[in-house]
Amino acid sequence: MIFVFYMKKRVAVVGATGIAGQQCLVALEHHPWFEVVRLAASERSAGKTYAAAIRDVKTGERRWWCLEEPPASVLDLPVENGDGLDVSGIDIVFSAVESDAARVLEPQYAKTAAVLSTASAFRYEDDVPIMVPGVNHGHAAQIDTQRRRRGWQGFIVPLPNCTTMGLVITLKPLCDRFGVKSVVMTSMQGVSGAGRSPGVLALDILDNVIPYIPGEEEKVARETGKILGVVRDGAIEAATFPVSATCTRAAVLEGHTEAVTVSLGTRATPADVAAVFREFGGDLAQLALPSAPERWITVHDDPFRPQPRLDRDADGGMTTSVGRIREDPVLENGVKYVLVSHNTKMGAAKGAVLTAEYLATAGYI
Amino acid sequence: MIFVFYMKKRVAVVGATGIAGQQCLVALEHHPWFEVVRLAASERSAGKTYAAAIRDVKTGERRWWCLEEPPASVLDLPVENGDGLDVSGIDIVFSAVESDAARVLEPQYAKTAAVLSTASAFRYEDDVPIMVPGVNHGHAAQIDTQRRRRGWQGFIVPLPNCTTMGLVITLKPLCDRFGVKSVVMTSMQGVSGAGRSPGVLALDILDNVIPYIPGEEEKVARETGKILGVVRDGAIEAATFPVSATCTRAAVLEGHTEAVTVSLGTRATPADVAAVFREFGGDLAQLALPSAPERWITVHDDPFRPQPRLDRDADGGMTTSVGRIREDPVLENGVKYVLVSHNTKMGAAKGAVLTAEYLATAGYI
Amino acid sequence: MIFVFYMKKRVAVVGATGIAGQQCLVALEHHPWFEVVRLAASERSAGKTYAAAIRDVKTGERRWWCLEEPPASVLDLPVENGDGLDVSGIDIVFSAVESDAARVLEPQYAKTAAVLSTASAFRYEDDVPIMVPGVNHGHAAQIDTQRRRRGWQGFIVPLPNCTTMGLVITLKPLCDRFGVKSVVMTSMQGVSGAGRSPGVLALDILDNVIPYIPGEEEKVARETGKILGVVRDGAIEAATFPVSATCTRAAVLEGHTEAVTVSLGTRATPADVAAVFREFGGDLAQLALPSAPERWITVHDDPFRPQPRLDRDADGGMTTSVGRIREDPVLENGVKYVLVSHNTKMGAAKGAVLTAEYLATAGYI
Amino acid sequence: MIFVFYMKKRVAVVGATGIAGQQCLVALEHHPWFEVVRLAASERSAGKTYAAAIRDVKTGERRWWCLEEPPASVLDLPVENGDGLDVSGIDIVFSAVESDAARVLEPQYAKTAAVLSTASAFRYEDDVPIMVPGVNHGHAAQIDTQRRRRGWQGFIVPLPNCTTMGLVITLKPLCDRFGVKSVVMTSMQGVSGAGRSPGVLALDILDNVIPYIPGEEEKVARETGKILGVVRDGAIEAATFPVSATCTRAAVLEGHTEAVTVSLGTRATPADVAAVFREFGGDLAQLALPSAPERWITVHDDPFRPQPRLDRDADGGMTTSVGRIREDPVLENGVKYVLVSHNTKMGAAKGAVLTAEYLATAGYI
Repeated sequence: MIFVFYMKKRVAVVGATGIAGQQCLVALEHHPWFEVVRLAASERSAGKTYAAAIRDVKTGERRWWCLEEPPASVLDLPVENGDGLDVSGIDIVFSAVESDAARVLEPQYAKTAAVLSTASAFRYEDDVPIMVPGVNHGHAAQIDTQRRRRGWQGFIVPLPNCTTMGLVITLKPLCDRFGVKSVVMTSMQGVSGAGRSPGVLALDILDNVIPYIPGEEEKVARETGKILGVVRDGAIEAATFPVSATCTRAAVLEGHTEAVTVSLGTRATPADVAAVFREFGGDLAQLALPSAPERWITVHDDPFRPQPRLDRDADGGMTTSVGRIREDPVLENGVKYVLVSHNTKMGAAKGAVLTAEYLATAGYI
Repeated sequence: MIFVFYMKKRVAVVGATGIAGQQCLVALEHHPWFEVVRLAASERSAGKTYAAAIRDVKTGERRWWCLEEPPASVLDLPVENGDGLDVSGIDIVFSAVESDAARVLEPQYAKTAAVLSTASAFRYEDDVPIMVPGVNHGHAAQIDTQRRRRGWQGFIVPLPNCTTMGLVITLKPLCDRFGVKSVVMTSMQGVSGAGRSPGVLALDILDNVIPYIPGEEEKVARETGKILGVVRDGAIEAATFPVSATCTRAAVLEGHTEAVTVSLGTRATPADVAAVFREFGGDLAQLALPSAPERWITVHDDPFRPQPRLDRDADGGMTTSVGRIREDPVLENGVKYVLVSHNTKMGAAKGAVLTAEYLATAGYI
Repeated sequence: MIFVFYMKKRVAVVGATGIAGQQCLVALEHHPWFEVVRLAASERSAGKTYAAAIRDVKTGERRWWCLEEPPASVLDLPVENGDGLDVSGIDIVFSAVESDAARVLEPQYAKTAAVLSTASAFRYEDDVPIMVPGVNHGHAAQIDTQRRRRGWQGFIVPLPNCTTMGLVITLKPLCDRFGVKSVVMTSMQGVSGAGRSPGVLALDILDNVIPYIPGEEEKVARETGKILGVVRDGAIEAATFPVSATCTRAAVLEGHTEAVTVSLGTRATPADVAAVFREFGGDLAQLALPSAPERWITVHDDPFRPQPRLDRDADGGMTTSVGRIREDPVLENGVKYVLVSHNTKMGAAKGAVLTAEYLATAGYI
Repeated sequence: MIFVFYMKKRVAVVGATGIAGQQCLVALEHHPWFEVVRLAASERSAGKTYAAAIRDVKTGERRWWCLEEPPASVLDLPVENGDGLDVSGIDIVFSAVESDAARVLEPQYAKTAAVLSTASAFRYEDDVPIMVPGVNHGHAAQIDTQRRRRGWQGFIVPLPNCTTMGLVITLKPLCDRFGVKSVVMTSMQGVSGAGRSPGVLALDILDNVIPYIPGEEEKVARETGKILGVVRDGAIEAATFPVSATCTRAAVLEGHTEAVTVSLGTRATPADVAAVFREFGGDLAQLALPSAPERWITVHDDPFRPQPRLDRDADGGMTTSVGRIREDPVLENGVKYVLVSHNTKMGAAKGAVLTAEYLATAGYI
């Protein structure tokens, strides 16, 4: 008879009162490997219980934006000030703060802890891999470089922007099988992706489309190149194909819809493309990551799919749903398709948890 | 001293109870040149007054979808059966019926009357020009061919699909100045464009995007080629550049938003493109067409524009609003922009009225 | 050692292609007592498989409106014509057709089968109880009268209108404990309640409220009285307190919100009212009905609740969520509250399944 | 021959960058009597031009929420700090700041200027009348009392809460003709009424109803009583009938919809009520106030009206649209109806301008 004693990794969530932080808490509820033991947010929330911190001071309204209820286990935890938070004894920090704060706080935590971040602050630094499980495991080796250079025991690993997520997941198998020469993409993004202060106003988006999201298109282009790059001589060499994005906001609660046109390296039929999408990620099942979707990519034959309301929550919000795969007459070896990706599940907090799971398996945490 | 006596052209609106027909009536209210004297619809409405015909039989609910109130002058007009409608004495028939009905009815009317149609039934026939004022005046000469071949005194001139409208208006000046080699376009279309029976259900589109509109993408590609084609040897020779469209439905009442990427024949900066957009249509002012916009294209510098809710009604719903003009890194000599076009004003009924005005000026009516 | 052999009740769903029928199929998926063996709809669908019948003939679009996917077990079932359907061998017919059809079809089925109906056709007949589990079990005895009078082996039991459902569930404990003297109610109803042909158009409800739903207010008043009536001398004697309803449609997918003001027979504080709400239905747990909610009424202390999007799906869509319980200064012994009830779960199809479960337990099926 | 020289009243708008302030600027564009010469807002905007002040500092997005474009005449005006603003030479200050700020700033301005306020700060003070043109002209006399008591040359006159506006306009003629004994009201309010920082989030209201607006119900009850009160012995004696309000937020851009049930002092038929609504305000036409609606109340016979999207802008957003007038079976001499009132036109900024027009005519400005 064998007894296995194990201890869950101790987790702190910073930026716990914002929507990404909330999604993080939901993703970590009843997690088999990780346990939330510390919460932090801005000074304004510090000293309150979590239950109190997610109430509007003036009106008492609960400021909680997940469909799932707040995990009972965190309601009574005290919220600490993220600035100056002592993370000794903490294995993983999930950082869901805005970028300016991330630049200051995340290096403090990374001295000793693994920092998984939804912020963009460190995404573009040479020794910081933007990790997407199933897509660029090889980049994890950059963590060693990062630790060495910065003298940290921990590390910072950011997720990509939520709009990049579904795109790179679908481009990866195309890259591997056919090569990718260029990408044109138009997104119709859900309002929950706009972050926290204050998010998209109803007055702006009801009966409307907003054709611009500051900085988004540049992020998508740059991050796609980096994530799909190769490691050469200990550095990530970004893929150089151009990505031309138009990012718009739609009157959708959650889920980013993207119309993608790709020029492939070699000719492929829609059926070929559907086949590589369906196969993608099959080898990841053996890792048995708790937050992983059953299928990395879900292919729809029905031309009316994917739709964000119907498909965002498929497979726990962790699959990328694809449909309308067809030939494109403009680009060389062109194919086009529409994808839906859940921007606050796979595209942010729950994706960060999945990444942490992978890095734990790979020995980095 | 000279007295000018003139008589308004006598107009019948067929399909008067549907949304396109309603918009047609609104566009013709107090029109200086045209007067609505006859209304027709399906058998179900025949014999009622217009006021009664736009009430739901069962619930009494008024089925009227324009922001403007129904013109008082038509409320008491009788609605006749479009099938078998005698159009003698009628100068112009605005046909706003669905395509199957149009195929049967429009030739009946065209024997003696000018038929301006929002239906697709005849758009693709050789001797039928798809007219867009300001874009392809030269195609009007096909009306003579059509009359000769078919033995009609009148004619059929269809408008393009509402999604094609804003696209060809913006492509035309690019074609003329720089040449166009290919187009990639993603649309986010308002629900009023879905026609009448039953139109888009709230249950389908609230908190959602629908990634497919049957037949729409093919129409956009084909009509764009035809409208931007040249007349050679008495026939329209379609432009041959490929148009790759992805047409989606958004939770927007009216106004089609399109993210357009164009490969130009010669290199042009965003400023060059903005300049040709701003100049376009300037020479049309001299025609003094009553329904014409002040500016054919309205260029926005603000990157958050155009937005359908804010810009669809600009210039009476007749201008095409353009913004976010920028370089595209994928296509050769690539530029991209976002446009908003009012799908039931310029893109349908009021565009048909404007076309009729042009054809009247040009002596065809 | 005891082996229990049992056979599931054999079920037919009529009106299976409409939204109520679809919800019915979802509610019956993996049901421990009932098994769907037959499907019927209008002539148009007859002869197709269910998978084919829920596709739009023209566009191929799937016409399925539940968040849950269609149960795999019914996709290949043939759809029969509801008119003339032979229900021999069927224990229960769930009838989700419109009222005109119900008037003709339901008596055909009731000759041999138990007919649970979401249609209003028979709701107001003397020998037909409108059953709401937990509210008026005593009315079930009317089934015997009905059988005797009409010479049926089966019976017809309709559910109330979806707007009545949450109202009577909350009024019942108030009636029992304090008495009810009058009710003023304003509803803000979700679009899924509008039924099928064609349902609420996006063009009508986006950015809007529609202040009238034909017939709804009368149904609410009449059904509330009947359901809360008492059986006297073998007949249901309707409660006579007046119910003044204003029923409106809101831009909400599912879930009816109702602002209710009640004049009680004796004075009660909001805390008293909350207490009787919380206790209500406690005794039903012992019945162990598979579709029953854990709590018949869920009371919220947070004044921002209940909200249809957050609360409609609570407890499988079967609980009535109540909040904002406070004194009303206008009515005698006045209290007021806001409720949210899921109009297509408890308020229609799944409520019908729950009713069938109760009637099976009570020996009527 | 007589020449009339006149000078427009000089106006300052404080809180000019918020939605109420913006609506105020729109209401004052091309005003025949008033001219905007000064703008003020919070310290953050001070020193910028108005055009710059309505841009988001970070993203450059224009923060302008009226359908009408910003008046060209104010774009280059400097924005001053409302705190410490010197209003010498200013005749009228339109104050559209939040209540906390109003409490401090408005008395500063009132020393010399007429202050028309959309804030609630002074609404409940004895010597401050809440003015609604056409409803309580007699209360204007309180301005004299206020000046005397406070030693001001100017004065503060607040408007009611936007939700109170349509209610009191419809209750006034009922009070005068039949008497009012009690009111039960449920509102479904547009998002633009939520003010500015940050207003209603899309994430909260899409596909939803929010059943609570902090403080709103108390305001409606208290203000209704005060506005419909009588002046006795130089003081306003509030009407004492109870007003039981349930205030909810709907997914509507602008326009408040209210379902109103009234107990009248004497019995009246719906036709009687419609008649007094139609007559109301007829005597105000002689005042020729520039912002006044043609009809104070617009009565609809169509039971599907009023709807906020269709009726909010009627008569320049200044009429109260009423429909569904019918008997109520619960209250004594009960009648009920539905109204729509434009919350940022008549219900706020443009109503403030109308009030200033009246007070100018009455000699107070």
